Amino acid sequence: MSITVQKYGGTSLADSERVKAVAHRICKSFNNGGKVLAVVSAQSGMTDMLTQKIKEVCNDPHKRESDVVLSTGELISIGLLSIAINNLGVKALSLNSFQAGIFTEGEFTKSKILQINIEKIIKNFEYYDVIIIPGFQGVNENNEITTLGRGGSDITAVALTVSLKLREVEIYTDVDGVYTADPRIIDNPFKINELSYQEMLEMAGSGSKVLHSRSVELASKNEIKIKLLSSFNYNYGTEIKKEELCVEKPAIRAISNTKNESKITIFGISKDPKNIAYIFEEISKENINIDVIVQDLENNKSNISFTLSKEDFEETFEIVKRICKPLNAVDIVGNKNVAKVSLIGVGMKSNPGVAAKVFKTLAEKNIDILMISCSEIKISCIINEKDMENATIELHKNFFENKKIEGEFK
Amino acid sequence: MSITVQKYGGTSLADSERVKAVAHRICKSFNNGGKVLAVVSAQSGMTDMLTQKIKEVCNDPHKRESDVVLSTGELISIGLLSIAINNLGVKALSLNSFQAGIFTEGEFTKSKILQINIEKIIKNFEYYDVIIIPGFQGVNENNEITTLGRGGSDITAVALTVSLKLREVEIYTDVDGVYTADPRIIDNPFKINELSYQEMLEMAGSGSKVLHSRSVELASKNEIKIKLLSSFNYNYGTEIKKEELCVEKPAIRAISNTKNESKITIFGISKDPKNIAYIFEEISKENINIDVIVQDLENNKSNISFTLSKEDFEETFEIVKRICKPLNAVDIVGNKNVAKVSLIGVGMKSNPGVAAKVFKTLAEKNIDILMISCSEIKISCIINEKDMENATIELHKNFFENKKIEGEFK
Repeated sequence: MSITVQKYGGTSLADSERVKAVAHRICKSFNNGGKVLAVVSAQSGMTDMLTQKIKEVCNDPHKRESDVVLSTGELISIGLLSIAINNLGVKALSLNSFQAGIFTEGEFTKSKILQINIEKIIKNFEYYDVIIIPGFQGVNENNEITTLGRGGSDITAVALTVSLKLREVEIYTDVDGVYTADPRIIDNPFKINELSYQEMLEMAGSGSKVLHSRSVELASKNEIKIKLLSSFNYNYGTEIKKEELCVEKPAIRAISNTKNESKITIFGISKDPKNIAYIFEEISKENINIDVIVQDLENNKSNISFTLSKEDFEETFEIVKRICKPLNAVDIVGNKNVAKVSLIGVGMKSNPGVAAKVFKTLAEKNIDILMISCSEIKISCIINEKDMENATIELHKNFFENKKIEGEFK
Repeated sequence: MSITVQKYGGTSLADSERVKAVAHRICKSFNNGGKVLAVVSAQSGMTDMLTQKIKEVCNDPHKRESDVVLSTGELISIGLLSIAINNLGVKALSLNSFQAGIFTEGEFTKSKILQINIEKIIKNFEYYDVIIIPGFQGVNENNEITTLGRGGSDITAVALTVSLKLREVEIYTDVDGVYTADPRIIDNPFKINELSYQEMLEMAGSGSKVLHSRSVELASKNEIKIKLLSSFNYNYGTEIKKEELCVEKPAIRAISNTKNESKITIFGISKDPKNIAYIFEEISKENINIDVIVQDLENNKSNISFTLSKEDFEETFEIVKRICKPLNAVDIVGNKNVAKVSLIGVGMKSNPGVAAKVFKTLAEKNIDILMISCSEIKISCIINEKDMENATIELHKNFFENKKIEGEFK
């Protein structure tokens, strides 16, 4: 039995016309040969509406009960899509996470898929041609509803693909793949035909919202090829796969950027490594994620800068002030007006000129680089927020548009 | 362990303020001694929204999948109410119909409760003080979601009361009981303190929308007292119970009225009873309910009039035209401008003057009675729609307002 796993996001199912369009697409896929296992998100706006309802009742809601409310959005989607497909004469069945046997473990609102009783689904494929399953949720050992947190529907789709021992999953959104830069900044960025898991992970971690890291990690671990496609057209999308399988390996694949950055600098604490460990330990106790860290030494004193998301800024600034006082810090300075621009590409490892080209590009436009962080396949620059768009445009010009003219990038 | 079963309707949970108000009421009930099993409807507007979504996708939706969508409204309610109660420091738990063990049989969209695995609920009361269950739904033997159709949440509440072997159930709506007449017609109708099951059933069948017949039948069969109360105040409501337990037995309890009536008259078919049986058999095949039937004979010819709800009029009129042609009917006349006014009361049996007083009241105001139907505890008059309000006002004046002055009705 040939089965294709397809995941449809909220904008793909936003209203009745979109639901019917997805139904047609699924039936077309079935008629081209092969049963379809569709994983669906809540209709766009639905999860926001449910979140709002919860918030109006209580600011700190009981998590088990939050999940009861939050999980209903996807249940509406599975029913509506199944109605639309049955109406086209194809035998479709919706299964909720109990019926489908999707078992989770861990905390409510951020649980993890533990195991999928795939036999239940396979048995239903004996009679049905399409099975529709809610993403983002499962049931725990007590048969209680749990949700998976951000990016949960993609995780459900990848996990089902793993359980079915399939090699690829199709993830449909409202864009037909990953682009070299944010189209809100760059007028005509280029679509990327293929990306390695590592590149996709670096992009997810540096501002790209296409896929959540957790689903990419799960796909990577199990070598599942992810095809990112649009449900609004039949264009060729982006494939995310093992680096070895990528034909193209340009130095730079894409530019990511995010304004959701802030920066804190601690001046003049004693350079004892214990101090630094202590500072970041205290911050991590509050579940705050630190992104880039830079330290420079001056005599026996150390200056430390680090970045974190804007929403954690105030809380972290208070923590740092409190714990650095006994460490005799000379000054603590915060800056909420910073942004991050990142260049990502597996080819970077074998191409030492990339960093130099980045610095030169930004210097020519008088853009100050406040901090730099490099991994094997990524260079991130922390710059002033006001420079972000300009930096992105210049980097895109120098790394992609000229490349295109030279024929190195299709 | 003392348990109170309470059911809250859609308007009682319409928004976050109402959800919090109901949470307070339940906690108050718990603090006064005794655990609470709350059955809830979807928030008002929610079921309409879901029905609309389904309709936009397909006019004739797959019933199993319709139920998947329609059942989500109550799931939102159980979660929100549980959040609100937990927030007040009382231990509440929501259980969906699978978790609560509410098993159904029969068709999707109009299934019946077969059995409740009450042990699951009782076990959870060992730890929790309030358990919240969605009305209107259950799971069938294949663990598929099914809904109970109109009035379903009341049925769930009564069925749970039966399973818990309790003697009464509290049903909360936005009115504090049953009144002697529709307040949209009569300015200040009187609240009825007690009603027998039969009276309530007759009222449900003649225009009153307070409770659906199925829940009253189930309560009657098991002698469960229904307390109709408002979740918006702490007024004394209306008790629905065995006739023998009713202290007051006035000739007339209440007046019901409905404009949702139409009338079809078939003139001059042969008086053979087979003909009449054949006509109503053909109509019932289309699942159309006939209300009042009147026949009069003239020589060997029979004239038959019957009433039915307005929405079934056109379809029925076509059926009647088709089947009465071979029966040589002289004429077939339809009238969509009729209404029904009914007087209901168990005391009527022992009070032969009621019918005469009705006729006199209407005659004095020149209101034509098109058809009459009497049961032991009900008199229904089919009148022209234009006369309905006036008839109700006059009957209420003669049967209740004067009574009140005489001190017979409190």
